[in-house]
Parts: sequence; C-alpha cells; structure tokens
Amino acid sequence: MTDRGPGAPVRVALLGCGTVGGEIVRLLSEQAGDLAARVGAPVELVGVAVRRPHRHPELPEGLVTTDAATLVGRPDVDVVIEVIGGIEPARTLLLEALKAGKSVVTANKALLAEDGAALAEAADASGADLYYEASVAGAIPLLRPLRESLVGDRITRVAGIVNGTTNFILSSMASSGAGYADALEEATRLGYAEADPSADVDGYDAASKAAILASLAFHTRVTAADVHCEGIRNVSAADIAAADGLDCTIKLLAICERLEDGGDGESVSARVYPAMIPKTHPLASVDGAFNAVFVEADAAGQLMFYGQGAGGAPTASAVLGDLVAAARNIVVGGRGPRESTYARLPVRAIGAVCTRYHVSLEVADRAGVLAAVASAFAEHDVSIAAVRQYGGGRNGKAGRSGAVRLVVVTHAAPDAALASTVEALGDLDAVRGVEGVLRVEDLGRSVSALGVTG
Amino acid sequence: MTDRGPGAPVRVALLGCGTVGGEIVRLLSEQAGDLAARVGAPVELVGVAVRRPHRHPELPEGLVTTDAATLVGRPDVDVVIEVIGGIEPARTLLLEALKAGKSVVTANKALLAEDGAALAEAADASGADLYYEASVAGAIPLLRPLRESLVGDRITRVAGIVNGTTNFILSSMASSGAGYADALEEATRLGYAEADPSADVDGYDAASKAAILASLAFHTRVTAADVHCEGIRNVSAADIAAADGLDCTIKLLAICERLEDGGDGESVSARVYPAMIPKTHPLASVDGAFNAVFVEADAAGQLMFYGQGAGGAPTASAVLGDLVAAARNIVVGGRGPRESTYARLPVRAIGAVCTRYHVSLEVADRAGVLAAVASAFAEHDVSIAAVRQYGGGRNGKAGRSGAVRLVVVTHAAPDAALASTVEALGDLDAVRGVEGVLRVEDLGRSVSALGVTG
Repeated sequence: MTDRGPGAPVRVALLGCGTVGGEIVRLLSEQAGDLAARVGAPVELVGVAVRRPHRHPELPEGLVTTDAATLVGRPDVDVVIEVIGGIEPARTLLLEALKAGKSVVTANKALLAEDGAALAEAADASGADLYYEASVAGAIPLLRPLRESLVGDRITRVAGIVNGTTNFILSSMASSGAGYADALEEATRLGYAEADPSADVDGYDAASKAAILASLAFHTRVTAADVHCEGIRNVSAADIAAADGLDCTIKLLAICERLEDGGDGESVSARVYPAMIPKTHPLASVDGAFNAVFVEADAAGQLMFYGQGAGGAPTASAVLGDLVAAARNIVVGGRGPRESTYARLPVRAIGAVCTRYHVSLEVADRAGVLAAVASAFAEHDVSIAAVRQYGGGRNGKAGRSGAVRLVVVTHAAPDAALASTVEALGDLDAVRGVEGVLRVEDLGRSVSALGVTG
Repeated sequence: MTDRGPGAPVRVALLGCGTVGGEIVRLLSEQAGDLAARVGAPVELVGVAVRRPHRHPELPEGLVTTDAATLVGRPDVDVVIEVIGGIEPARTLLLEALKAGKSVVTANKALLAEDGAALAEAADASGADLYYEASVAGAIPLLRPLRESLVGDRITRVAGIVNGTTNFILSSMASSGAGYADALEEATRLGYAEADPSADVDGYDAASKAAILASLAFHTRVTAADVHCEGIRNVSAADIAAADGLDCTIKLLAICERLEDGGDGESVSARVYPAMIPKTHPLASVDGAFNAVFVEADAAGQLMFYGQGAGGAPTASAVLGDLVAAARNIVVGGRGPRESTYARLPVRAIGAVCTRYHVSLEVADRAGVLAAVASAFAEHDVSIAAVRQYGGGRNGKAGRSGAVRLVVVTHAAPDAALASTVEALGDLDAVRGVEGVLRVEDLGRSVSALGVTG
C-alpha cells in the first residue's frame, strides 16, 4: 500500500489554526518524541493554511500559507487535518485530498452531517483514511467505540448532551433561576457562547452530531436534514421551575433511536430538543460545558461516556488520536474502518415518533374546565398520565382574573397527535393560554439499571 | 497480507463455552447477517473446544471437540477466540495460534497480566492481531479508547472500579450495614461471587486489570507482579461507618498513575486496594456490579467510562467487537495496533508512593495521649490533616475501661512512612489498639472539574 522508506516521516498539512489548530501545533511539537514512537515514524508538520498569516506570529514562517488548495495538493503531504469548519472551502479541499489518496482527519461536524457520503466515497475510492472523532463530543472517545468496540453488538439508542454552550445556559438557568436572555449573556461574557450563538442555541450543532452518531450506530446514512431539531430559545424560567416541581431538569438532548416498525421492519429516529429528564438520571447531573452520552446496546447493556465536549486542548486530543491512527496505517500499510451504511434503515418523521409532553395551561377557574381539557386530549388519542392544578378551587387562591394553572403530563403518543392536541387546547374557550409545552424523556430504565444513586 | 478469495468466510475457533462462550455462540448465529455486512465476509464458527461435550447439547455436534490444540492448529481456522481463562492451557494454545498467524481475541486478564509480552511478541512476529477488550471492564469500551483514541495524548491517571463482585459486596455493606461475611454470603447466593471468591475479594482480578490498563496508558510493560494488591476481606462494618462519618464511601480501586520523579524522570504506579473516596465523587455512586473508570490526560482532561463490567452478554459484546476488527483486517489486509512499550517507565514500589491514611485508634482516656500519638506521626514525617476524638474527655462518655476512640486522617506521605507510623502507634502504651487503617483517595479535583453535582 505504501512505497515509503522505513522511518520516513509522515507529513501533515493543517487547514485552519484557531483555538483547536493552535493546540494541535503545540502538541505536535511538544509530544513529537512520543508521537514518533507511537506511530513508528516521525510526524512532521509541513504546512499550515490560515486566512490571516499576520495573526499567527507563533507559527514558523516557512510553514504558513494562505493557499490551502496548493498545500493540500502538495505531493509531500500524507495527511490533511481540517479544523476550518463550515461546508466550503472545507469540502472541496478534503475531497481533493482524499481523491489524491491523502488521509483526512477532520473535526467538521457540519460538513460530515451534510455531505459525509461524498467524503466517505472519495476515501473508499482511493483507499485513504477518513477519521473524525473530534467532530462529536470533543475529547470523549465516542465514535471509535461506536464504530469499532460495539460493532459486534446491536445498538438501540444513543442519547446525550453533546453541546456545551446550551448545557451551560440551561445549567445556569436551573441554578440561578435566570431567564434565557440573561443566561445567554453570561455564557457569551464567559466565552461559552459565540457572538452569533444560533448554531448552538437553535440546536443545529447538536443536530449535526446526532446525524453522525445515528449513522455510525445504525449503519445507515443519516444527514442533518433527517434530524428533527428544536433549540432552547423558548425555554423559560417558568419551564425550568415547572421541571423542578416534577423532580426533573431540562437538558438539550440529541437522541438517536432504533425503532421497531410493524413486522420485522425497523426505522431510526434522530432528533434534538430540550426535554425534561428525571433528576435521578445521570445525565441530569452533567452541568456546565460538559458532555455525556448514553449508549444502549442489546448485549452490552447501558454505557455512559463522559468528559469535556469542547475546547482547544480536548478537541486537539481527539484530532491527534486520529492522526496517530492514520499515520500508523500509512507506516504499516493498513487502513481504518470504512463507512458502513448497509442497513439503510428509513428515518421516521418526528410526527410518527412517540414522545411524552408536559403541557402547562392557564385556564378559567370554573367547573367543567378539566373535563373540556381532558376530552381535547382524548379526541386525539393521547392518554393523560397526570394532571395538577395550581391555585383556584375551594382550597386555593385564584390567579389573575380568576384563572388557574393546569399542568398535564401525557403518556407516550405520536408527536403529531400531541402537537394537534396542543393546537386544539388553544382553541378552547376555557383555556386562556398554553404557556409551556415541553417533551419528557425518561430515557429508559437507565437510572436503576445503571445503579446510579446520585 | 492475505491470499483469500473475495467473500471467503472468516473462520473462527472458540476455546471455552461457559457463560461468555455461550453468548458468543448465540450472537454469532443471531447476528450472522449483520456481522457479515460489517466484516465484508461471512463469519463462520468452525469449532468449539470444551472439556465436557455432554454439557453442551445446544452446540451443533460437528463443531464440538475436547481437543483444543488440534482445533487451534487446523489450517481452516483464521481467528481463535479464547474464553477459558487461567494461564494454562490458554497460554500454550494462544501462542500456537499466533505463531501460526491466526488472530487471537481473548478475555483472559490473568494471562495478559502475567505473560502478555509473550503473546504480543508472537503476534508481532507473525503479523497476527491480538485483541483483548473483554479482559477489562467487560462491555465498557476502555482498552480501544486508551490504545487508540487517546494515543495522541499524555495519560496521567487511570483509576476505577473494575471488579463487580467486590463492588457489589462493598455497596451492600454500605447500604445495609452488614459485615463483610454476610455481604459475601449474599453475593454468593445471588451469583455475584464465585464459590471460591478469592480472585475477586483478594484483589487479584482487579490487579490483573490494573496491569493491563497501566501497560496501555503508559506505553510500558506492567505485569501483575508489579501491582501492589490488597483485597477487601478486612474491610469492616466499622470502617464503612467511619467512612460515612467523613462523607466518604469505600471502594476497591484500581489506580494507575504516572508519577514525576526528580528532574525529567517519570515512573508509574499500579495498585489495588480499598480506599475511602468522597461521596461527591462520581465513582462513589457506582453501585452494585457496575464498573466505572476515570481517565485523566493532559489535553483531553477528565473522562469517565461507565457500564456493565461483567456478565455473559456484555463480555460477549466486547469479544465480538474485537472479532469484527480482527476479521476486517483479514478481509481487507490490515492489522490492529501492536503493543507499545517504548516508554519503559520504572514501576515505583508502593512504599514510595504518596497516599493518605485514615487511622482509627482505641486509646486510654487520659491527658497527654494525643501528644504521644501526634509525635508518633511527626517522628515519621507524616503530617496530620485532622484528628477527631469520640467519647471520653469532659464532655463525652468514656468507652470500655476508660478508653476513647481517636480518628486521624493524614496528609499525603510515602506509604512506607505511614505503615511504620501505624506500627509505632501499636507500640505506644496509651494505644489500646489500632482498629482501622484505610487509605483515602480524593482522586484529584475530579468532582468539581467534572461538573457532577450528584
């Protein structure tokens, strides 16, 4: 597979040199001896493509270029590391590299979720490696375990907290009682949120990761477009308080599930939304910028992976792990696992996915209201698990203009039925307003089964 | 690397067919289609070596043999899976297989910890693969992450709960207040402990795993003989109560650390013993038969891996993951990572490892006793972090024959100094008895850093 001389260095081109790229450069030089020993040959950085060279005085001058395309095309480049992010020019550059037989290590979740197929096909065609551990959950080894350690098992669910920015915001809302806007402002001030936070707070970042996780877990190509995505902009302090009242906490979850259809049929669901989870669930205690992912498989049972999901050094750790793997393959003439999408399971639309809802209503404080509300649920075949009334009635004080708050938690029902139930509720005379609608996820019997007491 | 026809099956020999082996046979047939798709060729079980064929009516007759050596030597065997356990005949059989170029997948922690070097050398010599994910922490993907995902990083510590039997016993002692003997009896009755529990309760099983983890984490060959090992037989209900009083819980820990020596020198420590850890630490809430392992690395920071550490199906999941990896390599002509021991770090003796002690003393209830005790510590350069007296004195009631209990928690000091301090305490007139001596591990700043509230 390779006509290299023994001990010939593996030559690396780095595309992009921001927080992560800078850490990669630092570690490549600081760990040079160890990396060489682990690869079986020196690992040599031969070029770094950046947009503004003057911003990188720390880089050896000979290495810096603004011409990424030429760098990727250089015959003396064996591996291309991409940490630019975004679709273009990253896609064109990586396709060029792969077509030329150069292995690629990338952290680009957006590109993988949108067009991973093109990259995988180019890699298969040329026999080059394509690694992307850093694209999901930063330093947490997650893709390799899914792709290799659990490859002999049948994974049924991958669910977790994979976006640190939103987890930081939701955690501080829960601890301080602050509203979304204030919590976002704090996150921005502390550097946990970007100037334009939409990719994080609207759930797109988590959705890209869900697409990557579902593709690997279910041997099926799932793209970002297949992932139902809701962000946290509309999560209010009242929602957090309501969750607290139910011994729950609200987390932005990426959920990938293998679903039984009729007969032997199966489909997959990949979705991202804020949901209430029991405080006793291990994911509930994952605070701040940390990530944690639950994996359930038939034989392995329940597993949890936990750690720092972002940041320069943690992400660089994942990139370098992939780099060593790719470099080893070049030295010994092997290759990493190829994309596996043989199962080709259909993706079930969110409307047909069964979830549970928590609905908070402001209703008139008069007899018959509960009956009217209950029948709205019944008409849509949604069965109610619990109802609670706050204020009003004989033994309570009525809210403004004789209104009381009614909280309904449903059993699992098709999401579409729940959505139209909520719509119907809004049309009821007795209902002054539908204040909070949130999904409830108990994530299986994880808690007890995992033996977690805290 | 291989002259196989395209699509030719990968032929597997299974050595041993107990709980784990039975699950492997079941999954190989139930998942046949998926395994073939993931490997790129059918995976075919061509023989199963067992000691008592009549005990395995479920196995197709043609497959069963009592002659493991002949099975391993068959030219139509590509991969050998070993789940017999123990040193011999497993070692001889696996060495034969590897020398003949057959890849090996084993769950045999004892063999790997005692003579993994011989297996690794045989694999390197013939170019065969040697995988053993199932040997540590059952279904939890741990070795592959250490060996591959974190190979670009500098791992500083691996610490965890890797023996389910002892964790079950300690958990039930903590929850029920039962003594060791009763808890062991319950564990045996429920099938969590074997008839002869010594390998588990004396810490040998955990020590083997510590040797394997330290070898991978530090690129250094560490054998079971290098691991300081203490079991849980002497952990008393009083110890558990004492731990509880300090907001701690007692766990049997396997700890592998990279230690700074003078100058640029480094050494490693691998040790197993029951220790007090803060209840707020995530490992403290790992109950029952579950396993969890913490990993700390320079760039990745802190990671946790969590799941079922034993049992037929979970262990089989890890074995099949390795089988698919080995089979893929045979089909595409690659090979897995080889043993990496280039660092050759010395193993530091337990006496020179700094730990903390919790010492519970029964002392005479008279003036000057604390001074005598304190100077015993001072004479050995062990500084005291906290002292507490129970009973006696003006405001307490004295224990039997005017004795009171004194609990001392030290700062970190060389283990040898602590040991001789405890010895010296025993010689003091004022000391009626040294009742409980336990190490205290705060496991770094894991808790807050991990953002775990529970």
